[in-house]
Amino acid sequence: MNISITKTTNPKQKPDMNNLGFGTYFTDHMFIMDYTEGKGWHDPRIVPYAPLEMDPASMVLHYGQAIFEGLKAYKAKNGHILLFRPDKNMARVNSSNERLVIPSIDEGFGVQAIKELVNVDSDWIPDAPGTSLYIRPFIIATDPYLGVRPSDTYKFIIILSPVGAYYKEGMNPVKIYVESNYVRAVKGGLGFAKTVANYASSLKAQVEAKHSGYTQVLWLDGIEKKYIEEVGTMNVFFKIDGEVITPSLEGSILPGITRMSTIEMLRKSGIKVTERRITIQELYDAHAAGKLDEAFGTGTAAVISPIGEFNWDGNVISVNGGKIGPVAQNVYDTITGIQSGELEDTFGWTQIVK
Amino acid sequence: MNISITKTTNPKQKPDMNNLGFGTYFTDHMFIMDYTEGKGWHDPRIVPYAPLEMDPASMVLHYGQAIFEGLKAYKAKNGHILLFRPDKNMARVNSSNERLVIPSIDEGFGVQAIKELVNVDSDWIPDAPGTSLYIRPFIIATDPYLGVRPSDTYKFIIILSPVGAYYKEGMNPVKIYVESNYVRAVKGGLGFAKTVANYASSLKAQVEAKHSGYTQVLWLDGIEKKYIEEVGTMNVFFKIDGEVITPSLEGSILPGITRMSTIEMLRKSGIKVTERRITIQELYDAHAAGKLDEAFGTGTAAVISPIGEFNWDGNVISVNGGKIGPVAQNVYDTITGIQSGELEDTFGWTQIVK
Repeated sequence: MNISITKTTNPKQKPDMNNLGFGTYFTDHMFIMDYTEGKGWHDPRIVPYAPLEMDPASMVLHYGQAIFEGLKAYKAKNGHILLFRPDKNMARVNSSNERLVIPSIDEGFGVQAIKELVNVDSDWIPDAPGTSLYIRPFIIATDPYLGVRPSDTYKFIIILSPVGAYYKEGMNPVKIYVESNYVRAVKGGLGFAKTVANYASSLKAQVEAKHSGYTQVLWLDGIEKKYIEEVGTMNVFFKIDGEVITPSLEGSILPGITRMSTIEMLRKSGIKVTERRITIQELYDAHAAGKLDEAFGTGTAAVISPIGEFNWDGNVISVNGGKIGPVAQNVYDTITGIQSGELEDTFGWTQIVK
Repeated sequence: MNISITKTTNPKQKPDMNNLGFGTYFTDHMFIMDYTEGKGWHDPRIVPYAPLEMDPASMVLHYGQAIFEGLKAYKAKNGHILLFRPDKNMARVNSSNERLVIPSIDEGFGVQAIKELVNVDSDWIPDAPGTSLYIRPFIIATDPYLGVRPSDTYKFIIILSPVGAYYKEGMNPVKIYVESNYVRAVKGGLGFAKTVANYASSLKAQVEAKHSGYTQVLWLDGIEKKYIEEVGTMNVFFKIDGEVITPSLEGSILPGITRMSTIEMLRKSGIKVTERRITIQELYDAHAAGKLDEAFGTGTAAVISPIGEFNWDGNVISVNGGKIGPVAQNVYDTITGIQSGELEDTFGWTQIVK
């Protein structure tokens, strides 16, 4: 399919590229492709960024049939625009689609659409250290219909947002509240899919944790409330007794692409990484035995978020003296170095936009 | 607050009122009210039904922060327009809002908004037996922002859809597939809230059940997969050994208003109704002992949906010879009679629009 391009005749004024924050500003263009039952995905186009005209009965507004992705484009020093593993995001689109009964997309074409859109808006990519162009592909159900069933029509949309450095003032470890009340997801639910429902479910726990002075929550499994799942909107890793451990994907955990990259990178550098179920009690026991060396989250927004403190039902433990540890620092430096083109990409993770 | 009214200058052609189906046609007007942090809910208005202009970054499209309700208006033979317990729907709006971190609404004002909108579009209310005007209030998060946090802006919208008789060809009991794989919700999640996430989660199970020749699924609890929760988009009741049993609300089940009304009505008529946890095994044991007399679902769309067959992992049982039983028939006749004004409302359930 050819992607038609209609350029804006009224470009926006660019924001202060030194004060971008996250997800607040959007570029001049967006990608849209429609799906109609019987006709398939059609009419891919890059058009000026503008409000969508949505029927108030659009199914996404009522039954949440929607999925999304998040990845970043980086401007390398040599002028190249780099994407980080966009093929993995497009594969996850189809995994999420399958669970939400949304028709699958052509993954290669999805990557092509991202590249063409980023290219059209390439002057929106910030180039200060740590900054990037956040890419948000998403699919929404658009039938104007109030019965509960999968929609017959969808829109696949990509929007772009220039984002600032996540760690402007250094990588200060975060304080994490272990959530014993609310549940994010269980096996048989939507936890492994990148879908709107999981985020809706997380808001209340997040707000309550913030009120108590914590940055994020650590989710426990919804069945026994003892196994560690993920932290806020990130996957989570622990270094215990020289071994790096991350919860295995059991159907309720998002299979993060930064998670996958962290595992691959650490293993290549000779560090033992184990994917298995791990209880919050084991984490606390390891701490009591002096063996919990590091804890950190992984995700697209922050890449790595070191964890300095946990609060589990009032029992507070500090990790690595509240400072970032060497494994987290190494993962951060390596992945961000590859993403920004400052380190050689020996993994074949990056793709050049053009 | 006064509700401003802007009437359409271009009324739609009305659909064939004898072939309405469910949720397909929408009336000439809708109600909208905005929320802005610091300003509260404001600018309530009835305007022509039209597409919403939504920023592609609107939070509802990405993080599913949204809730909805469903109720019906009926045209009584004496010309009155009746609503069925709209105060209960508005109370549930606030219960759902609280879980989704959406600011609460004034419940009385919500009922007033419904009444004014229904009144403006009163010529859309069908009057054939079993038909009604379906009312869909919903709230969506509208901040154009990609960070995961509660929105600072919302829209509360009400749309109306004339709907046909649910049972055009008699109340034929449905076949129900007992779902052992997918999970709708668990305690600590969103199950008790009327929010988009629960419906997104249900689609795949529903499609698979349909492919196997079943109308809906019976959800089991997500923890032990043994307790009965609800059926499809309805609550569920069983008559076992002369007693009517419905699963107790444990945080994962929607507190249905038809469920509440069924319990109140049956108790008033002297039938013992017990709200408690009940396992699927108990249901099958009761059937084996010849004591499972009836099974039926309750919900706004169908009011009562008798169940004639269950399939639990290949074990098929038939209920009441696949026919509707006297309790279900009595509940249906009483509630629909009160809703449509044909029976005296000794409960004080109905409200007259004007």
